[in-house]
Amino acid sequence: MFVTFLSDFGLTDDFAGVCHGIIKRIAPEVEIIDITHGIPAQQILQGALVLAKTVPYMPEGVHLAVVDPGVGTDRKGLVLRDRSGRLYVGPDNGLLVPAADACGGVAEAYELTNRDYALPWVSRTFHGRDVFSPAAAHLALGVDPSAFGPRMPVDDLVRLDLPTPEIGPSRIAATVLYVDWFGNVQLNLTADDLEEVGIEPGSKVELVLGPDRYYADAGRTFADARPGDLILYSDAYHNVSLAISGGDAATLLGSTPGDRVRIVLRTPE
Amino acid sequence: MFVTFLSDFGLTDDFAGVCHGIIKRIAPEVEIIDITHGIPAQQILQGALVLAKTVPYMPEGVHLAVVDPGVGTDRKGLVLRDRSGRLYVGPDNGLLVPAADACGGVAEAYELTNRDYALPWVSRTFHGRDVFSPAAAHLALGVDPSAFGPRMPVDDLVRLDLPTPEIGPSRIAATVLYVDWFGNVQLNLTADDLEEVGIEPGSKVELVLGPDRYYADAGRTFADARPGDLILYSDAYHNVSLAISGGDAATLLGSTPGDRVRIVLRTPE
Amino acid sequence: MFVTFLSDFGLTDDFAGVCHGIIKRIAPEVEIIDITHGIPAQQILQGALVLAKTVPYMPEGVHLAVVDPGVGTDRKGLVLRDRSGRLYVGPDNGLLVPAADACGGVAEAYELTNRDYALPWVSRTFHGRDVFSPAAAHLALGVDPSAFGPRMPVDDLVRLDLPTPEIGPSRIAATVLYVDWFGNVQLNLTADDLEEVGIEPGSKVELVLGPDRYYADAGRTFADARPGDLILYSDAYHNVSLAISGGDAATLLGSTPGDRVRIVLRTPE
Repeated sequence: MFVTFLSDFGLTDDFAGVCHGIIKRIAPEVEIIDITHGIPAQQILQGALVLAKTVPYMPEGVHLAVVDPGVGTDRKGLVLRDRSGRLYVGPDNGLLVPAADACGGVAEAYELTNRDYALPWVSRTFHGRDVFSPAAAHLALGVDPSAFGPRMPVDDLVRLDLPTPEIGPSRIAATVLYVDWFGNVQLNLTADDLEEVGIEPGSKVELVLGPDRYYADAGRTFADARPGDLILYSDAYHNVSLAISGGDAATLLGSTPGDRVRIVLRTPE
Repeated sequence: MFVTFLSDFGLTDDFAGVCHGIIKRIAPEVEIIDITHGIPAQQILQGALVLAKTVPYMPEGVHLAVVDPGVGTDRKGLVLRDRSGRLYVGPDNGLLVPAADACGGVAEAYELTNRDYALPWVSRTFHGRDVFSPAAAHLALGVDPSAFGPRMPVDDLVRLDLPTPEIGPSRIAATVLYVDWFGNVQLNLTADDLEEVGIEPGSKVELVLGPDRYYADAGRTFADARPGDLILYSDAYHNVSLAISGGDAATLLGSTPGDRVRIVLRTPE
Repeated sequence: MFVTFLSDFGLTDDFAGVCHGIIKRIAPEVEIIDITHGIPAQQILQGALVLAKTVPYMPEGVHLAVVDPGVGTDRKGLVLRDRSGRLYVGPDNGLLVPAADACGGVAEAYELTNRDYALPWVSRTFHGRDVFSPAAAHLALGVDPSAFGPRMPVDDLVRLDLPTPEIGPSRIAATVLYVDWFGNVQLNLTADDLEEVGIEPGSKVELVLGPDRYYADAGRTFADARPGDLILYSDAYHNVSLAISGGDAATLLGSTPGDRVRIVLRTPE
């Protein structure tokens, strides 16, 4: 049985390692796959986006995710099952739902209240260790989701507001969702959105970021551009991203999540 | 059988990965749990503190730890067994003892001298790979600790000086032990120390760091404070820490390990 | 069966985690050893050097390596077998060959073209996930290398130009190959090169880096020098490196890979 694990714990401290220890003490045969612990601290939206795009590539099992700025408040803990049979454990702050939606939608939701499946002492600041990891281990051992607490109406789950693009004639106002280690800048756009305004592979576009303007080529991949050229492309997860062939687009553009980017189709002169 | 592994090797190089390879070659069935490899380079005290607080959450087994600025000198290598049966491997520089003390105290100590359990060639700069990882693998396979070298008197083990707080009337002079990824600042204090000077949840305190002064609330968790407020709280490991609700206390305060913090109880006016 | 895994994916994103998921879906019993994912982005030479020095310490199995700036171009994918029986998967850009050479040389090479062993949809930007990880998993399951595509002449494999030192009387012009987390600076030299110009343990040398000059001692290890002294030593992988006892040589020297370092033997006055 597999437990996948995503968090904003980083790897410089022991937070992720301690959770591994807890899971292995309860369920020594379970295998843990770390999706990443590099979600920026307390950024629920970025955690939810990464979880939603990666879970479909994971073996079936339990998907543990902890980005939890509300720990210690009255935010609920959750156990979810999606329509494909995958299980999820984490806080009720919107983190889990997009992944379940990417796998058929939430089938059942339970509030995680049963202390029989938590550590004997539950701290007020580290439910990843004290509540969510033990619950993930017990789920992986076969405990039924309904054993963890009362059933919740799916409509009561906290959901995130995802920024939506504004699409006009020959232009789109988009938002930066994510910047990766290579400096690629993921936007809240699909290839369909680009097509709607007439941007297709080979199109020339202008990017407006605050006071700055850049030219970019709509292409299929880095290899379609000369080194140093900005490209607008459909990435490996079918998201539209900005990249520089052989370079770091985020540094050039000074982009961080939440930034607005206007994309304007340039008409051949 | 489990081997847990803590070091200051970081994850940008191959150091931790090579040690995994060595352990798996000798003991393919052993499972390795990485506690963390993010201990700041050569900071034995920080490594010892993290090991001591995490080992009790780990499955029983062999606890390998390497923070080893004295590699290549005459510092000894160690195999320890604590009173709860856990085993430890690492350098004799104080790194291992606080963890063993947290689990009942050191029961037996052996100097790691037997080259039969090391790699054929032992470098002078990477005993993590050449000596400690092979020893951990052989221990996990069931080799008795006494096979690794001569028994040492427990009193001869190198021990660290932990900074002690100075406690006066309505005030404490504390030391920063650790700063985590979220910017939380761990002090060398327990909740009992605070209570001794009359600081309890709800108290108002003044923090003095060099020339700077800050107000903070003694609280139970982030959720008890408004976003942006400094709080003094008992963290998930029962240590007293400073945090900012929704923020990064270490950056605000400019704190690094070793810094002094004076905490003064403010009397209601 | 083991799959070792080296890349420039970093650990802040999900790239390495997704590859783990893919391998585990195809081959749940396989064990993955992460050598490192901290190779600097798109630095093939550094990836090749780290792979070559670490593979000999790994259990036998499949060695997956992805540093792949040419993804999406017509660069080939490879499956290699070396003369010791180890298998390799990755791009044909020079990344794999030095490791195979360190283990007896390349015995057989196949171009990785068979889509039966790739994901159903192959992106143009993430062959680590879509092509190389599935191939590694199928190799680990026992699929013969020849099933992955047409055999290639070993002489047709892309090979890297390794910088060679210039050795003169009492002096060497070397190149920085690698800087590690501790700030140690690895040069393109062996102890034999030093010996050739008369530099041996105990020798005094002058280092010339651009306009700057430093004195260093040729020693065996950190322990042979006083804290703060620069030393030139043979590291744990038999490479010649520069280090500071108790410090960070790369920061002092301002060294990054590719920099030139002239080393001049100082004659006793």
